[in-house]
Amino acid sequence: MSGDLNDLSRSVVFARGEPVSPQYARHFTGECYAHDLVPFTSPLGCVIGNVTFAPGARNSWHAHPGGQVLLVTGGRGWYQEEGQPARSLQAGDVVEILPNVRHWHGAAAESWFVHLAIETDIKGGPPVWFEPVSPEVYAGLRSQA
Amino acid sequence: MSGDLNDLSRSVVFARGEPVSPQYARHFTGECYAHDLVPFTSPLGCVIGNVTFAPGARNSWHAHPGGQVLLVTGGRGWYQEEGQPARSLQAGDVVEILPNVRHWHGAAAESWFVHLAIETDIKGGPPVWFEPVSPEVYAGLRSQA
Repeated sequence: MSGDLNDLSRSVVFARGEPVSPQYARHFTGECYAHDLVPFTSPLGCVIGNVTFAPGARNSWHAHPGGQVLLVTGGRGWYQEEGQPARSLQAGDVVEILPNVRHWHGAAAESWFVHLAIETDIKGGPPVWFEPVSPEVYAGLRSQA
Repeated sequence: MSGDLNDLSRSVVFARGEPVSPQYARHFTGECYAHDLVPFTSPLGCVIGNVTFAPGARNSWHAHPGGQVLLVTGGRGWYQEEGQPARSLQAGDVVEILPNVRHWHGAAAESWFVHLAIETDIKGGPPVWFEPVSPEVYAGLRSQA
């Protein structure tokens, strides 16, 4: 997609980083990149990453014991909480995710998607991961846009 | 500066918001805008703002009881901790500010400057403000670039 205005394969503003590390790759579907901006070793107790999803890529259902904020910097994507309709996202959007709420996020089927992910309080521990978003659920999203 | 590629007067990615509110304006020098992305009323305990500085604009010396992270989204600016040389900043840069460290941040003299400001733990209370950055200190920054 090089040269395509919608090609965000180099991410937006912040470094794209590498494909998600092997220990996390099983919690992602498709081509996903993550770059630590503030690592979990920071004394600030707040982890910040820049996450870049290729078209169709997304993470599995998961929850953060301390909550999370998403700040969308580019492309089109989705955020969905368990039992709720999916929310369409674009640059400038903000998502506040309360502790222990099951959710997933990722790119739209035909767009790259980039967001900053801020774990606001890591004292409660790392994310808890569940099953992948099924192809059927993902394929059904368009009708909710 | 409309039409100027360096004109970030509409901010970068996130909403620019309004000029800093009257209760904070005395802690800023020059033309500064702030927009709350995550307000202090959020149950997440993490305040996030988008801050846009016109050329030459900056905040006064201050400190955050819970620390702060700056994520630079555009332009050129400065970050300085008390007793340290100033650090030149541009898009993609990250600054971790430990609790109670006196510092200031703002635009370069000839560039707009935009950053996200993340107060990682607001339980310790709001920022503590001190004196403005003197014109002499600010004018001397260029030699440190």
